[in-house]
Amino acid sequence: MPTPPQEELGRTPDGCAAERALVHEGPVFGVRRVDYRLQDGREVRKEFIEHPGAVTVVPEDVDGTILMVRVGRIAVKRFLLEFCAGKLEPGEQPMAAALRELEEEVGRRASEIRPLGGYLTSPGCSDERIHAFRASGLHEIPSRLEAGEEIEVVRLTPDQIDDSIANGEIEDGKTIAAWFLHKQDRARSEDRTS
Amino acid sequence: MPTPPQEELGRTPDGCAAERALVHEGPVFGVRRVDYRLQDGREVRKEFIEHPGAVTVVPEDVDGTILMVRVGRIAVKRFLLEFCAGKLEPGEQPMAAALRELEEEVGRRASEIRPLGGYLTSPGCSDERIHAFRASGLHEIPSRLEAGEEIEVVRLTPDQIDDSIANGEIEDGKTIAAWFLHKQDRARSEDRTS
Repeated sequence: MPTPPQEELGRTPDGCAAERALVHEGPVFGVRRVDYRLQDGREVRKEFIEHPGAVTVVPEDVDGTILMVRVGRIAVKRFLLEFCAGKLEPGEQPMAAALRELEEEVGRRASEIRPLGGYLTSPGCSDERIHAFRASGLHEIPSRLEAGEEIEVVRLTPDQIDDSIANGEIEDGKTIAAWFLHKQDRARSEDRTS
Repeated sequence: MPTPPQEELGRTPDGCAAERALVHEGPVFGVRRVDYRLQDGREVRKEFIEHPGAVTVVPEDVDGTILMVRVGRIAVKRFLLEFCAGKLEPGEQPMAAALRELEEEVGRRASEIRPLGGYLTSPGCSDERIHAFRASGLHEIPSRLEAGEEIEVVRLTPDQIDDSIANGEIEDGKTIAAWFLHKQDRARSEDRTS
């Protein structure tokens, strides 16, 4: 790779100005590499995942229960209790992706969907951003799982979700962060209306 | 790769029994690939990150304020407000790593450290597990940043952290999940003692 002038490297020890070379390309994400030199002359190599981004949905039923999914995760070789989620397709808007994933994985169409914010799953090594939503006004439709997806819908009360996070049964960070945003949004909406 | 018998693939559409080939190896994480065939004959390729795991620490000072860090993140080309964090070194225990990262990045030694649980940052594409801790009984020492780390310590009140999550200034999912675990642990400890 071309070596940027030393003073530029000195101004950007986080390597932002350095070339970000694609060193691996997979079906969902790629790996980019950045080589740069610190002001003291040391060379640093960093790599990070280039990810298309994803969505997750907190589907709230009319009785206040939440529809989660138990999904087989090849990376950790077991089933995890999560909010339904999926990656963004090329050009797809996050809200459209959220409604699509809710239909595909949970088998529910939502008449209301509310953005809860977004977060980076692991910014030390990935640019993956998750867009979180709350879906309500749900009605059942046939689910349409993608090839190889093993997903079971599981209904939990909010207290059961809290307990499952506390006891470690819910161990998906994206789900814990989305649950925080959902609860915070609820609490702040109540503050504004009271 | 060797093809497992069809019935085994049928029993493991999540590919758990299939070979997990290392297709990229980087300074921190690798990429593993799994090819498998569904019962209907379709072939699926999945890849995931193999990560050594990491720790994050919620450092609580004696006045109840929290010491966060603003850290340059090459993957997203900007500085993020996070809890201090770092990857596990080979053979290192999570609690030891948490105390080490707190000293290196925040410049504080802790006399008390409490596990808050753990979570997977993005189990759809990575096996990275974060072990979260609360540190207290802090006293200041010189920080020892690694080469290329650009980190500024930032002191926030709990309300400021809540607000920064609500307004999107805190956009690190690991930090939001750790903050949930910290607050939940505090609330449940108070319930038990009241």
